[in-house]
Amino acid sequence: MIIVMRSEATEEQVMAVDERLRALELASNISRGRERTVIGAIGDDRKVQTETLEAMAGVERVIRILKPYKIVAREWHRDDSVIQIGGVPLGGRTVQVIAGPCSVETPEQMDVSAAAVRAAGCRLMRGGAFKPRTSPYTFQGLGEKGLEYLVNAARQHGLPVVTELMDVRQLDTFMRYGVDVIQIGTRNMQNFDLLKEVGRVDRPVILKRGMAATISEWLMSAEYIAAGGNHKIIFCERGVRSFETAYRNMLDVTAVAVLKRETHLPVIIDPSHAGGKAWMVPSLARAAVAAGADGLLVEMHPCPNEAWCDADQALTPQELNTLMGELRGIAAVLGRDL
Amino acid sequence: MIIVMRSEATEEQVMAVDERLRALELASNISRGRERTVIGAIGDDRKVQTETLEAMAGVERVIRILKPYKIVAREWHRDDSVIQIGGVPLGGRTVQVIAGPCSVETPEQMDVSAAAVRAAGCRLMRGGAFKPRTSPYTFQGLGEKGLEYLVNAARQHGLPVVTELMDVRQLDTFMRYGVDVIQIGTRNMQNFDLLKEVGRVDRPVILKRGMAATISEWLMSAEYIAAGGNHKIIFCERGVRSFETAYRNMLDVTAVAVLKRETHLPVIIDPSHAGGKAWMVPSLARAAVAAGADGLLVEMHPCPNEAWCDADQALTPQELNTLMGELRGIAAVLGRDL
Amino acid sequence: MIIVMRSEATEEQVMAVDERLRALELASNISRGRERTVIGAIGDDRKVQTETLEAMAGVERVIRILKPYKIVAREWHRDDSVIQIGGVPLGGRTVQVIAGPCSVETPEQMDVSAAAVRAAGCRLMRGGAFKPRTSPYTFQGLGEKGLEYLVNAARQHGLPVVTELMDVRQLDTFMRYGVDVIQIGTRNMQNFDLLKEVGRVDRPVILKRGMAATISEWLMSAEYIAAGGNHKIIFCERGVRSFETAYRNMLDVTAVAVLKRETHLPVIIDPSHAGGKAWMVPSLARAAVAAGADGLLVEMHPCPNEAWCDADQALTPQELNTLMGELRGIAAVLGRDL
Amino acid sequence: MIIVMRSEATEEQVMAVDERLRALELASNISRGRERTVIGAIGDDRKVQTETLEAMAGVERVIRILKPYKIVAREWHRDDSVIQIGGVPLGGRTVQVIAGPCSVETPEQMDVSAAAVRAAGCRLMRGGAFKPRTSPYTFQGLGEKGLEYLVNAARQHGLPVVTELMDVRQLDTFMRYGVDVIQIGTRNMQNFDLLKEVGRVDRPVILKRGMAATISEWLMSAEYIAAGGNHKIIFCERGVRSFETAYRNMLDVTAVAVLKRETHLPVIIDPSHAGGKAWMVPSLARAAVAAGADGLLVEMHPCPNEAWCDADQALTPQELNTLMGELRGIAAVLGRDL
Repeated sequence: MIIVMRSEATEEQVMAVDERLRALELASNISRGRERTVIGAIGDDRKVQTETLEAMAGVERVIRILKPYKIVAREWHRDDSVIQIGGVPLGGRTVQVIAGPCSVETPEQMDVSAAAVRAAGCRLMRGGAFKPRTSPYTFQGLGEKGLEYLVNAARQHGLPVVTELMDVRQLDTFMRYGVDVIQIGTRNMQNFDLLKEVGRVDRPVILKRGMAATISEWLMSAEYIAAGGNHKIIFCERGVRSFETAYRNMLDVTAVAVLKRETHLPVIIDPSHAGGKAWMVPSLARAAVAAGADGLLVEMHPCPNEAWCDADQALTPQELNTLMGELRGIAAVLGRDL
Repeated sequence: MIIVMRSEATEEQVMAVDERLRALELASNISRGRERTVIGAIGDDRKVQTETLEAMAGVERVIRILKPYKIVAREWHRDDSVIQIGGVPLGGRTVQVIAGPCSVETPEQMDVSAAAVRAAGCRLMRGGAFKPRTSPYTFQGLGEKGLEYLVNAARQHGLPVVTELMDVRQLDTFMRYGVDVIQIGTRNMQNFDLLKEVGRVDRPVILKRGMAATISEWLMSAEYIAAGGNHKIIFCERGVRSFETAYRNMLDVTAVAVLKRETHLPVIIDPSHAGGKAWMVPSLARAAVAAGADGLLVEMHPCPNEAWCDADQALTPQELNTLMGELRGIAAVLGRDL
Repeated sequence: MIIVMRSEATEEQVMAVDERLRALELASNISRGRERTVIGAIGDDRKVQTETLEAMAGVERVIRILKPYKIVAREWHRDDSVIQIGGVPLGGRTVQVIAGPCSVETPEQMDVSAAAVRAAGCRLMRGGAFKPRTSPYTFQGLGEKGLEYLVNAARQHGLPVVTELMDVRQLDTFMRYGVDVIQIGTRNMQNFDLLKEVGRVDRPVILKRGMAATISEWLMSAEYIAAGGNHKIIFCERGVRSFETAYRNMLDVTAVAVLKRETHLPVIIDPSHAGGKAWMVPSLARAAVAAGADGLLVEMHPCPNEAWCDADQALTPQELNTLMGELRGIAAVLGRDL
Repeated sequence: MIIVMRSEATEEQVMAVDERLRALELASNISRGRERTVIGAIGDDRKVQTETLEAMAGVERVIRILKPYKIVAREWHRDDSVIQIGGVPLGGRTVQVIAGPCSVETPEQMDVSAAAVRAAGCRLMRGGAFKPRTSPYTFQGLGEKGLEYLVNAARQHGLPVVTELMDVRQLDTFMRYGVDVIQIGTRNMQNFDLLKEVGRVDRPVILKRGMAATISEWLMSAEYIAAGGNHKIIFCERGVRSFETAYRNMLDVTAVAVLKRETHLPVIIDPSHAGGKAWMVPSLARAAVAAGADGLLVEMHPCPNEAWCDADQALTPQELNTLMGELRGIAAVLGRDL
């Protein structure tokens, strides 16, 4: 931690900061320049809040040097983590594509979907039973019934499933149905009570990035889960809010390179929610794999324009198939399978 | 709803949209221009998802004409709503300043705080017992103990209290302690299960704006609460995420004018979390009242630089007192009390 | 400047940075923590590019401690600067409202406008002769003819004028017509050649903030003008780009407090271009004055809905008059005139 | 154009809008719903400003249906445009990588650079002679001398050159030195006088996206150039401003898919200025080609950490070489050469 004093700070103010650091069990290094005095705090200051020091008289600003996250940091765990999901590895040499419809609708729709997912060569399936919807007046998902349809269809085709958990009170139900990967949605990235709960179970978690969360905040949310004991965390970039109105969210493709440097955990991309239109998905999906993502979360529906929600962003089984071919080629260029 | 067809759309595609509208029980009006055919849907289309239509062949885009919210809309309720909080009216002629520390620390700190809040002329008190913190390693609030200290101190000084609810499982506890106003924080603005729960109780709710939520999404979150039966909703703007790094959040002062036009519900501003530094608070607080806000949510601590969190953004009792004087003057210019 | 080394940085890499600092005529202070070595550069490093150091092996990041601007910084010039514009002081006790139409249209329109500006109690007039328009197919301003109409009308009513300069080749014309204040528009905030040119003349400059410029970049653009010798610079906040679509730009009212702390130069606000709708202007204008702005730049048109551009954001003379009354009240609360 | 009336709009107000449309030589279609009356304007309304109508009494909002751009729109020119640059085609089957140093420094540096660019298999060279710098105190480029070094070195190795034009007064010099492609930088995307000037010459133009420009504004800036007669325009996405601080700009990879749909002109990506760090460049460059970009603009320096500017973002010749191999593989997957 670096404490920059204001140019007019007095010697007493410098000393007060120095003393406060000692009280926090940190050593210090005082550097007196012509225009500014700068105090370096030495030691593990992760638990110290910068605001406490910024509130002191004479302090201009406080800069954190150490990364605030630890368990999820690559600095402390150099090798890539590979997460096993019902026998399917995520985070290693193989790029995994998780596909399926936005929402679970009927047993038939789920069966056709699972078959198509499998046929396209994907090894994991997605589907929403509990849906976060902007409006209280639109379809909110089938709920528990949806979990049942999803799990049944996926099991039939040998696919582990991913589905979103929105409410702490549903966690037991998710465990009972044997959901393989719990997805935490963008709106809940900083729902800390929910993070703490999934941190206590032994089940992989896909943590979607908050709509306008910085990468650092996102890593800290993962640290919440990890701090509870669950280290099986997968980051999922799904586009962030921006000023652009030509599409729904701005896919932050740079986040892939940054995360691969900052954390040992796998990173996947959701091109469907990013762009928001099916015609953008292939371009974004290819970019994601080329950038180095470990997987994708893609929406596919047997008949997109009859989908009960997000009809405009789902690929057809045909389109998914074609896309898989392209992605396989790109993965190979990077020395990966798919 | 307006459906704009692509320039190369065929007559069959236009007819298919028209048929779909009828299936949705909407009438239509087809306008054929030289470059585009445009179809207007006539009727209450609030439950129709635009994506369903956007997914149809030949459709370029779909534009919603009717506002998606209804109970909270001024269009359907012309007069300002005034919400009664333990005898204190919010949303009428009087501008209300809710003040208090970021987090509840000790009974003594709370007692001194309540006295100072009262002395400054404020009629409502705030204080955090459950704290949403970016890092799992920092102080998370006193929890239930904090509720007790807060309510005890406030009652002593005749002040109704506002405090944040983060977890659906705590709602009963909040009711049992007699929390007067439930605050939904920025990170939970789209925690729909939480919104539904507070929609079922008879208690005023302060709904903070999501970190990067549009005003329309914010109104829809309020609509979630209102749809459950609880119409006592107060909007609280607290700054949004931006590219600027000179302060914490960018206070969206324009939201006041927009909300006053769109909804009949009260609108308040939190200048403390917006700027993030105590020295910015007076300027922002004055701007808020001058813009037409119905109240403020301000952090004050008996001894800011010893605060357990957000030490750098709390006003001293002295500073709060001075600020109240300025705000009173500005309110008077607008024909209001404070 | 603080150079943070990567945790795995070698001693040779630390020494190489140290040597490079000496080559740049800076002294250094090396602090070795358990997790990181941090090197402090001592001396005036404003001309050193942080990237040069960030490119060195073993360096994690480089943090600038000294503000990169100097002439415009309050740190070096404690008192507020007051800029004289044809006898009208801007930046002192009196809040100045600069009003007038978006674009100059006809001599009659300008004469009526100037009379209305004067009647409302404003002391400075605005009007656009050269208009920056998003589309090449819309009205681009009257050009030189517009300067003539503007200056003539304003002189008649004893009002100094403000108008926008877009092209370096027009500067002589502006000087010849006796334009009192040269406005640099948002799209040209980093048109460095234009900044250098207006830095060479003896004429006050209103420097609008770039559409997504940080306050620091904005101060640096002012430093460009100041470095040329022209210190008569007025900052004008006019809203920045954001994700919100309920209005045109998001007025950054916090910028007022930040700028008043960072620079000694005057700060004004343009509420008309910020919100983009006339009905938002009074709320934003009041907020600006309450926040501590030194003035406003407001659009007024004798007959808004016949205006040749931005018809929806101009106040009527009547509305300007009413607004001036409110602003006078708020200014008085802050101990200022208007 | 669709004009949505307010719910309380009177019949007179509807008629006034209708009349105004006729005055603008547009036909109309009035649709009266239960909650809103909506008026469709029929005809080419590109020259009509929406604000004129939005300023009218009773109007809620005005929505543009037709795209405001025409010459650059794919709607009017279905086939991809291929731009010839000294015999090198940009926009067709072959993906072009334009490489070279950020700034021109010495004849030797340029000669080594050109040789390395050529050796890596690139067919076009870049280099900055006039540099837009945030600070007036840092290196501003060699100016005309730089053009000379750049052109000389590139000619020696058979490479056409790209370099940035900042000032209208330098255009003649650029033409005299035979600059092959004129680059308009991000800060000048809406410097309309500069756009008009390059619209008058017969020379390809790379138009970088403004720091926070929407894709629509960007297309309109291209339309400015095209309207002057110069249709040889190349769009270059270089990252936009965002709230994220882990890198310099957020690369908008989705812009590739959107632009390829909206315009027939070529689209390239600058991964160097986007991320701002050399280690991010390979990931972003691969993503760009995979997304479907027609080319890249990449910084390479013979010895990055001695570069006079942006030292931290340049690749070494070695790194460029390796990257080219990966890009060739990805291009092949998409059926393209490189």
